[in-house]
Amino acid sequence: MNTSDTIAALATPSGVGAIGVIRISGPESIPIVNGLFNGKNLEEVQTHTVHLGTIRDNSTVIDEVLVMLFKGPHSYTKEDVIEISSHGSPYILQKVLMLLVSKGARLAKPGEFTQRAFINGRFDLAQAEAVADLIAAENASMQQTAMKQMRGGFSDEIKNLREQLVHFASMIELELDFAEEDVEFADRQGLIDLIVKIQSLIQSLISSFEYGNAIKNGIPTVIAGKPNAGKSTLLNALLNEEKAIVSDIPGTTRDFIEDQIHIDGIAFRFIDTAGIRETEDKVESIGVARTLEKMKEASLVLYLVDLENDSIDSIREQVEELRTSDVPFLVIGNKSDIANSELVEWLNGLEESILISAKKKENLEELRNRLKTFISTPAQSDVIVTNARHLQSLQQTDEALNRVVEGINNQISNDLVAQDIRFALFHLGEITGEVTTDDLLENIFSKFCIGK
Amino acid sequence: MNTSDTIAALATPSGVGAIGVIRISGPESIPIVNGLFNGKNLEEVQTHTVHLGTIRDNSTVIDEVLVMLFKGPHSYTKEDVIEISSHGSPYILQKVLMLLVSKGARLAKPGEFTQRAFINGRFDLAQAEAVADLIAAENASMQQTAMKQMRGGFSDEIKNLREQLVHFASMIELELDFAEEDVEFADRQGLIDLIVKIQSLIQSLISSFEYGNAIKNGIPTVIAGKPNAGKSTLLNALLNEEKAIVSDIPGTTRDFIEDQIHIDGIAFRFIDTAGIRETEDKVESIGVARTLEKMKEASLVLYLVDLENDSIDSIREQVEELRTSDVPFLVIGNKSDIANSELVEWLNGLEESILISAKKKENLEELRNRLKTFISTPAQSDVIVTNARHLQSLQQTDEALNRVVEGINNQISNDLVAQDIRFALFHLGEITGEVTTDDLLENIFSKFCIGK
Repeated sequence: MNTSDTIAALATPSGVGAIGVIRISGPESIPIVNGLFNGKNLEEVQTHTVHLGTIRDNSTVIDEVLVMLFKGPHSYTKEDVIEISSHGSPYILQKVLMLLVSKGARLAKPGEFTQRAFINGRFDLAQAEAVADLIAAENASMQQTAMKQMRGGFSDEIKNLREQLVHFASMIELELDFAEEDVEFADRQGLIDLIVKIQSLIQSLISSFEYGNAIKNGIPTVIAGKPNAGKSTLLNALLNEEKAIVSDIPGTTRDFIEDQIHIDGIAFRFIDTAGIRETEDKVESIGVARTLEKMKEASLVLYLVDLENDSIDSIREQVEELRTSDVPFLVIGNKSDIANSELVEWLNGLEESILISAKKKENLEELRNRLKTFISTPAQSDVIVTNARHLQSLQQTDEALNRVVEGINNQISNDLVAQDIRFALFHLGEITGEVTTDDLLENIFSKFCIGK
Repeated sequence: MNTSDTIAALATPSGVGAIGVIRISGPESIPIVNGLFNGKNLEEVQTHTVHLGTIRDNSTVIDEVLVMLFKGPHSYTKEDVIEISSHGSPYILQKVLMLLVSKGARLAKPGEFTQRAFINGRFDLAQAEAVADLIAAENASMQQTAMKQMRGGFSDEIKNLREQLVHFASMIELELDFAEEDVEFADRQGLIDLIVKIQSLIQSLISSFEYGNAIKNGIPTVIAGKPNAGKSTLLNALLNEEKAIVSDIPGTTRDFIEDQIHIDGIAFRFIDTAGIRETEDKVESIGVARTLEKMKEASLVLYLVDLENDSIDSIREQVEELRTSDVPFLVIGNKSDIANSELVEWLNGLEESILISAKKKENLEELRNRLKTFISTPAQSDVIVTNARHLQSLQQTDEALNRVVEGINNQISNDLVAQDIRFALFHLGEITGEVTTDDLLENIFSKFCIGK
């Protein structure tokens, strides 16, 4: 991990815009930019000030820019940071980046600015990870969860657990030093009580993950049914309201919420089954469960029935297949306005069903309410785990603590108990980055945007 | 034109990025942002300073942001301007924009910030137009031409011409006031000499437009020929080198230079003829000239010959057709490595031809040199006209000046001469915006990005 050089990257999305921002961090930030900047001498200006000038390639003016200067440690990375705000031409931004490189900067890897912020102690690992979540936030729930985590909510909880455990760990380690004297510094019942308390907190964090994961990644949902059952009409009916809300804000892209609907801040992401259909010869004859097999990521199946044309027999068969799978499902009878009454009666007798008309927009609110029931209720803790890495560390902590309790109850030797407590501390420390490896860091930060 | 309200817009490209910037300008910028910002009181901070804090929706933290403050007139628009740099989540940026609107800001129209900069006298109209050109710049020539214009090069030339003319105009107007006394304040021969000088400058500007237009818009080029002549191999061979140059800069998009090659800073933009082919029944039987008819925008035709399989007769027919059209063309004999020697001999006798092998990358440098000959040489003036609106105004000025000279030579009455001088001044003034209409401004600024 080299933080002695100076890194540079485009920090704004690529493409044409009014402005684009290039970020530079490292010991040579100021001299490097100074060598290209025609304006005030940046060595002599105060931190947190903005300066108008030009970026030049020898005598050629590349752009008129604003240069923002943040002197370490009062910056994102705690190093000297400069942000160059230029006209948003990809050509100009690329040219400026190349000039910075020619003066000695290195192009930053994804997440490298945040990695430096972590290494330099600006925040812990869980907080750094929350920065990426915040950028990826697509709705209020995601944004709030990430913001809480970035501002330390989750880290505080973990650190609190860890501190309590550290106290007992040091007592047990002390006993090891005095092993021959058979003293007991650590109150065994007190330790077990503490561990029970910690495990209960860890369990509540673990169980918040299902909800946290739904917040972060949405609920992968498959709409099954025959081609004419009205899938796209239903999707459009559900999507339309949302579109209307945001489409009057110019300059925002709609792409990122296409084909998903938000209910109570949770995204239902609709998986496209088209690809699977095309690879099979006889699409309509393939059962829903068989389709499901291929979409292992589905957490919910909406089985859309054409109330006008489908037959009870074929639906019964599909519902039976669905029941054999583990995935929750809802049978949606569509075209209730032109329904076959026998079919309606049969579906009304089915617990997992609801009747709607996507075309006439009938009963959609009721459908939304039914969809809500598939969202697991939030955990009691105010803090929600959204990160699979954190979940794994919490589970490993929990397992180590189980062994500690078992060990104490079976009066096994102190050094084994001490080792399991150390394991628990290690896994808790992994979450906040008190314990790290280069591989772990590499893996975490490589998922970031360039420039962050 | 209302500049009394406060406008806001996303200034960076939409999409996910490390950071996104929202720009606010107008009299209420500072109080509006202050009402959402938790950090220093922005009413009390100095201009050109940056402040860390949070944007809040009541008690909910939306994001940790940097706020940059520029007090008018020391800002882009000469109004109070604030730039909010937040995490680059489209959700967060949209939320912040909505909060600004809820506090009284209005979403800006495209180009509205630059329009205010123009209205408030930060720069003239030609310079404002150059801002949009600069953002759209895709190569060094475009960037340099736009930069010169933005920094006033073109405007200075126009203002200089106009000032010289204004002196004589006022003399002639004065004569009108003393019409009964038959005095002559304006030296007629001096006026004619001046006009000749001005017209020569105007002519050189007008003739720079062809080059300027090629810089700005590229040279629309059609590759014709039978489907197997090797069009895509040729394009790939020409494109490959460029791709290699820029593809190692992360974060830059390549989209904007797909299917065009740059030679001496001029883009040859290849027009896709696929659409035209598909609408016709028998594609190969359609002559090149007939295809050309449908592509009125083509400035150059590259007629690709398959040296292995094409027949002399069919090529001769096509070349004759091409000669009857006005569009310059080059016959490119491809597959020179496996050529039919009779065809090679015939093509060597043709002035407008070159032999290459796209597959073996033979003679491509020579092809580039031949393509260069289709770039009109730059005008003598250092200033290059790139804008069709400016061209039109220059032409109208020239026509009015022709009438002035004609009028003086034919000794027509002073008031008619004075009117034509006024016309000339009017049209010169249109370029820099000394003369404007709301429609004109609307039309110019609506072509800008949002947020600029």
